[in-house]
Amino acid sequence: MGSIERIKNVALRVAKWHKAGYQIVVVPSAMSGETNRLLELVHAISPQPDPRELDMVAATGEQVSVGLLAIALKELGLDARSYTGWQVPIKTDNTHTKARIVEIDGARVQQDLAAGRVVVIAGFQGVDNEHNITTLGRGGTDTSAVAVAAALNADECLIYTDVDGVYTTDPRVVEEARRLERITFEEMLEMASLGSKVLQIRSVEFAGKYQVKTRVLSSLTDPLMPLEEEMHSGTLITFEEDKTMEQAVISGIAFQRNEGRIVVVGVPDTPGIAYQILGPIAAANIDVDMIIQNQSVAGKTDFTFTVGRNDYARAMDILNQHIKGQVSAQQVLGDPKVSKVSVVGVGMRSHVGIASKMFRTLSEEGINIQMISTSEIKISVLIDEKYMELAVRALHKAFELEQGRST
Amino acid sequence: MGSIERIKNVALRVAKWHKAGYQIVVVPSAMSGETNRLLELVHAISPQPDPRELDMVAATGEQVSVGLLAIALKELGLDARSYTGWQVPIKTDNTHTKARIVEIDGARVQQDLAAGRVVVIAGFQGVDNEHNITTLGRGGTDTSAVAVAAALNADECLIYTDVDGVYTTDPRVVEEARRLERITFEEMLEMASLGSKVLQIRSVEFAGKYQVKTRVLSSLTDPLMPLEEEMHSGTLITFEEDKTMEQAVISGIAFQRNEGRIVVVGVPDTPGIAYQILGPIAAANIDVDMIIQNQSVAGKTDFTFTVGRNDYARAMDILNQHIKGQVSAQQVLGDPKVSKVSVVGVGMRSHVGIASKMFRTLSEEGINIQMISTSEIKISVLIDEKYMELAVRALHKAFELEQGRST
Repeated sequence: MGSIERIKNVALRVAKWHKAGYQIVVVPSAMSGETNRLLELVHAISPQPDPRELDMVAATGEQVSVGLLAIALKELGLDARSYTGWQVPIKTDNTHTKARIVEIDGARVQQDLAAGRVVVIAGFQGVDNEHNITTLGRGGTDTSAVAVAAALNADECLIYTDVDGVYTTDPRVVEEARRLERITFEEMLEMASLGSKVLQIRSVEFAGKYQVKTRVLSSLTDPLMPLEEEMHSGTLITFEEDKTMEQAVISGIAFQRNEGRIVVVGVPDTPGIAYQILGPIAAANIDVDMIIQNQSVAGKTDFTFTVGRNDYARAMDILNQHIKGQVSAQQVLGDPKVSKVSVVGVGMRSHVGIASKMFRTLSEEGINIQMISTSEIKISVLIDEKYMELAVRALHKAFELEQGRST
Repeated sequence: MGSIERIKNVALRVAKWHKAGYQIVVVPSAMSGETNRLLELVHAISPQPDPRELDMVAATGEQVSVGLLAIALKELGLDARSYTGWQVPIKTDNTHTKARIVEIDGARVQQDLAAGRVVVIAGFQGVDNEHNITTLGRGGTDTSAVAVAAALNADECLIYTDVDGVYTTDPRVVEEARRLERITFEEMLEMASLGSKVLQIRSVEFAGKYQVKTRVLSSLTDPLMPLEEEMHSGTLITFEEDKTMEQAVISGIAFQRNEGRIVVVGVPDTPGIAYQILGPIAAANIDVDMIIQNQSVAGKTDFTFTVGRNDYARAMDILNQHIKGQVSAQQVLGDPKVSKVSVVGVGMRSHVGIASKMFRTLSEEGINIQMISTSEIKISVLIDEKYMELAVRALHKAFELEQGRST
């Protein structure tokens, strides 16, 4: 939620749904800029603050929001009541700053709903077994919303964001990108983890685990738009591959621009070699994305992986200084300017030829493929950064995504 | 607490006490301006916000403070832990925005103290029986501090404020005003309620009820000043009249500048007449200060009381429009420009002549006394506002307060 004006708009929207007879639970985020303001206060005192105390401070942003939203709802004549995470309670483990939700007791909320109240629950936060306040980390409010929907057996969880749904690819790259009316949970998971940052990946996982019908839609529309229109807007994440999906193959093109590729050349193909290489990288808190190890030739193999570009230099240092000698590698090569492009689609499972169509398309554009990695419903390739937009546009066109699901 | 710099200063001061071997519990207020910022957000949404939701928002100011202070303490190498009101828990009744503390469970705090931790507790807030967040109203942090000290059987409760103690009178009025090293609880109560706004009156009442040795001292001193000096600075509120007090009579001159005096003339001296007059005034949320009703003559009496000057016009309206006729008063008179001046001292109990000395002093200055009211340890007079400073200075001199307690 942004300014006071946006809080009032949220209240108008909620009132509209409530008036139509729906029982509503709202999980607002902190006001725009508030979480950053709090983190700046903390970091002005300590560069490495105690995580428990950081959570104590950070959780107040959402607490302010729920109180203000409840007041705005009451101002519209609705009965409303706000709850913090601990009041619900939303129980989590004790991993401060990135806690995981363990259990939600919906009893108090259900009582309020039965009494005709709108319930407003603070997102992003919970409480551990010892009554400490915890937060869920980035995107935690989405996760809270989906988890609350699961705990209450909600018909649908509506996630209002600053985009109006999930697209076949980023409209800033491909003008013809089209909003998907539906996407399966598995596709959404791949799209989220591959860089379409509409929903935080943890909230998608939660939706999958508890089969929460989740809709992503825009918070920037007129709050008084017709309900019938609003309830069919955005993108619905589903759990059944319905009939219209049967012929569908590819739902979208995802990409990750800023990657770096690292190859440890000529390491002995012995057990534990992958751990010897990646252990110190993980210990330095560097996330590794794609990992490839080819069949060995003459007892030697090349071990390749990608990292975020910001971590590239640090990863290379660690490899050259500490690991190269230990694993008797011939050399360590790297390229800090690569991008990953992926085609995603649940229909891929039962269709052949997707990979070859993808590779042919890239080849026709003269784009060299540096690495390939596949899952059941996606194929990712690593290419030179400068070809990224070209690749995305060519694939979007080849799979006819601008015309609806490709067949 | 003010800025980040002030939080760091508080941490330095606490560390100094901790290093000297004291077990410390700190009850910080919200950062400077934070509570007002939160209330402005609320009032931008609703002129009459729901009190429960107002508390939800307002309580976050102190929650931010405790987290930041704990982080600052850890940054100095101390082990510290912060708690909100509900985490302690500080249990209150359910009167939102002005809740009263019912019970404090000190068990968790005691465990932390025993483990060598500094404990930081959010002031101004608590939790009711149904897990709703409550706040204690203006000055609530002082009250929280005293209540926590009582619950933990603390040796002493130190209240750091923006003044360096309790004075014989306001130094802005009398240059020779002198800081009192000690003051009894009852004197403090009279001084607080009479306008020396060093401590909120509720915190003084709490200190009295639970016999908490409380010291008022300055937060503006060098946090690293010698401990020995700091622990004897400020003003100690005591519960015994010690030997040095035996001969003492007057501890200070308190005053209330902005009062209005109202006289309901010639009302029948019948039971219930006071309630008939003051009931509607109280119902309009107007605080009444002094009340005087003289012996009746021929079944008629004059009923006189004072109100804050801001409420004067409203009170006069209510009396003239609704009450005057009902009680068959001859007329309603008033003066919006009067001040109250009081001499306060526990020694007054056993001394005669204080009243006459006071009246003679005022008479010598040509100041007319409009009303007189007394308690066991104070004498208050109402005078024309323009003589207020003169009266305070003359009394301060007459009772030799600049030289230590008068004899």
